[in-house]
This record gives sequence, structure tokens and C-alpha cells, in this order.
Amino acid sequence: MSEPTHPDQQPRTPTPRPGGRSARVRTNVVAATLAEVTEKGYDGLTAEAVAARSGVHKATLYRRWGGIDGLVADALTASADQPWPLPDTGDLQEDLRRITQEVFDVFTDPERSPTPIALISAAQRSDVGAAALRDFFAARHHQAAEVAERAVARGELPVGTDGAEVVSAATAPLYYRLFVTGEPLDARTAERAADAATLAARAGLFMTTSTTPTDPEPGTTPATPTP
Amino acid sequence: MSEPTHPDQQPRTPTPRPGGRSARVRTNVVAATLAEVTEKGYDGLTAEAVAARSGVHKATLYRRWGGIDGLVADALTASADQPWPLPDTGDLQEDLRRITQEVFDVFTDPERSPTPIALISAAQRSDVGAAALRDFFAARHHQAAEVAERAVARGELPVGTDGAEVVSAATAPLYYRLFVTGEPLDARTAERAADAATLAARAGLFMTTSTTPTDPEPGTTPATPTP
Repeated sequence: MSEPTHPDQQPRTPTPRPGGRSARVRTNVVAATLAEVTEKGYDGLTAEAVAARSGVHKATLYRRWGGIDGLVADALTASADQPWPLPDTGDLQEDLRRITQEVFDVFTDPERSPTPIALISAAQRSDVGAAALRDFFAARHHQAAEVAERAVARGELPVGTDGAEVVSAATAPLYYRLFVTGEPLDARTAERAADAATLAARAGLFMTTSTTPTDPEPGTTPATPTP
Repeated sequence: MSEPTHPDQQPRTPTPRPGGRSARVRTNVVAATLAEVTEKGYDGLTAEAVAARSGVHKATLYRRWGGIDGLVADALTASADQPWPLPDTGDLQEDLRRITQEVFDVFTDPERSPTPIALISAAQRSDVGAAALRDFFAARHHQAAEVAERAVARGELPVGTDGAEVVSAATAPLYYRLFVTGEPLDARTAERAADAATLAARAGLFMTTSTTPTDPEPGTTPATPTP
């Protein structure tokens, strides 16, 4: 764990030791950040309010989290660390349908949707938040990749399938609607996204090797991301 | 929001008469808004700077656009109105690959990407912007739906395919990376997104009727969006 010692240092996501006072402080601060950002949004989020709500001194917040953006980033990191149950129905299409249905359920539930919507929107507002957002989705994709890995083990998908990419493809149409186009989500979209990802995965589109059955020009697709 | 709107006046997207002074004013104001939001972002966008850059009085900006958010919304509306060439290769997969390649090209080009990134990010910051964003993507999807409609006419896709949904599915993984997860775009992702949408469309997943070959429970998928 590297804690900033000067208030003018870059915000960063602290990684306190598990257990003990440091972990309790983090738990309280994350809970307070989530509550505040849900109620007031990024523009209304203040270190003062998080300090008051968590019972942690404002100076401690600045020292350990660097400021508002570090608080938002760490709340995302803490969310990514939460384990969540994966479906295991023995069928990739059904597993993916349950995953997209869960995204649909969360984001159309007036009780459960405000916090993730506020947290993702807040994270988009700073570089440190954006980095945490990227790590958050990478962690979620990798956790859920297990449904594709089991499908590979069953012989349902080709060996070499990138499970995280399968999950990303299944959920992308939902987040695209939620956070880009603003179209309302419907259950049909969630199911169709899962079914489309299943078809693509079965056809070998998500194999990590560069040559796929529908890719006649592998040389034109660089393996390294374009900046 | 950076700029207060007049208390009794909601921001709105004006629809000036085509041609004449009103149209010229709008052209200048849209160009100035695009330049300002690209240079300074939403947080740095002011009616003063748009007025100075466009040569249009600030009072006129407030009267016709309501404020910053109305300016952002109208810049998006103007962008949606711009015609753009569609590929017509005689093959749906190739047409969709060219569309996703164009999105990839624009958003990885340091010259062309800053304005759409700044405009979309700015529109996410207000309700009037979000409404314009939704209309913008709907317009884009509907314009490009022609590639799927031609595929239906060729017998390549089932009759009843929703072309806008095909285009949305092909481009969603790119915008998901750009505006939600923050993962870098690569050419492989763009191609794979087009190929996955092609497979799904050919399988009948984007038919507007509620029953599809891979949907054993049509009764569980309401056709109307959930609010």
C-alpha cells in the first residue's frame, strides 16, 4: 500500500491491508461515497459530506484517497472486488441470458439502479475514475468468463475462446443503451444480446488466435490495441 | 450545468426555417459550439465564448437555445442531419465491416475523434443533451439500416428484420469500449462486431416479430420497452 503523504499528490486507489482499522475505515468511506454519489451525483459530491457520513476526518480522506475522484475510483474498485454468483445451467446460451437478464434487472430496478448509474457516471468524469472503470469492467468480464470456459470444457465452444470477450459482447448492447444512446432497456434486448454472443462464440469469433472462420485477412487486424 | 438557464424557460432544440438569416445564424452557432466544446469540454463551455466565436449575441443564444445544454443538443441534431455515405458492397457482412471500420477510423484518428468524443460526453451531462443523444443515435441507426434492408431484398436476411437493430448491434461493442469501459479500440474488435451482428441477423435474431428461432419463450419477452 502506498499512501500519499502530500495533499498535492495524484489521487490514487489505496489498497489497505485486509482486516483491522484500515479496512474498517475503507469500508465506511466506500459506503459513504456510494450513498453520497447516489443522492447528489458527481457534481454534488464533496469530501466534507463523505467525511461527515463516514466519521472519517477529511484530512484522512485527502491523504489516503487524494480527493473526490480517488473516492469514486475506490468505490468502484471495492464494487469489483465483491464476489457475485454466476449461473451454471450447463448451457452457454442460458448462462449468458441469465447474466444479461441480471444486468437488465439491476438497471431497470428503481431500488437497485441509482447507485451503479451514479457511480459509473461519476467515474467517467475524471482520469482516475476512468481507469477504475476500465479495471471494474475488466474484472467483471473476467469473473463471468467462467461461463464460457465451462462451455469450452464441455466442447460447446472452440478451444482458445476468449471468455471475457464473450461476456463483453453479451453485455455491450445493454450498457450501450444505458450509457451512450439512452434508449430504454427491454427484456428482449437483453435476451437477444445473449443469443447473439452465443452464436458468435460458437462460430469461433472470440478465439484469441487471429484467424477465424470469417476472417479472410488476419494480417489486417493488429493484435495490439490502437492507442 | 455551467450556465444558468432563464428560470421560466426550458432549454430546447430550435428548428429554424431552412435558408435565410436564421439558418446562417444556426450554422455559425453550431460551428462555434463544436469548436468550443472540442477545445474546452462541457465544463469550460460558456455562452459568452460561443457568442464571441459565432458573432451571435448572447441574448439571442439564450432566447433560441435556452443555454449551454440547448447549444450542445442542437449541435448533435445538426450532426445527425448531415448525410453520410453508406457502403453498398452487395454483402451484409462486408457492409457492416465498413461501417464499424469507419467508427473505428474516426474514433482512433487524433484529428477526427476530439469533436465527437467531446460532443457525446457533453450531451451526457444534461437531460436535453441526453434526449438529443438518443435522437442522434436513432437517426444514425435508421440511416444505416439501409444496408440491412438491401440484404433483406437480396434474400440474405429474413423478411421482417429490423435494420436499425442490426446496425446498433454491430456498432454497440465499439461505443461500449469508447464511452463505458474505456478499453482501447482495435481493428479486430471492429471487424468482430460486424461479423457477430451479421451472424445474429442471418439467424433471425433481429426480426421485429417476437418469436425467433432461438427464442423458446416468446411470452416472457415483452415487446414494449420497460421504463
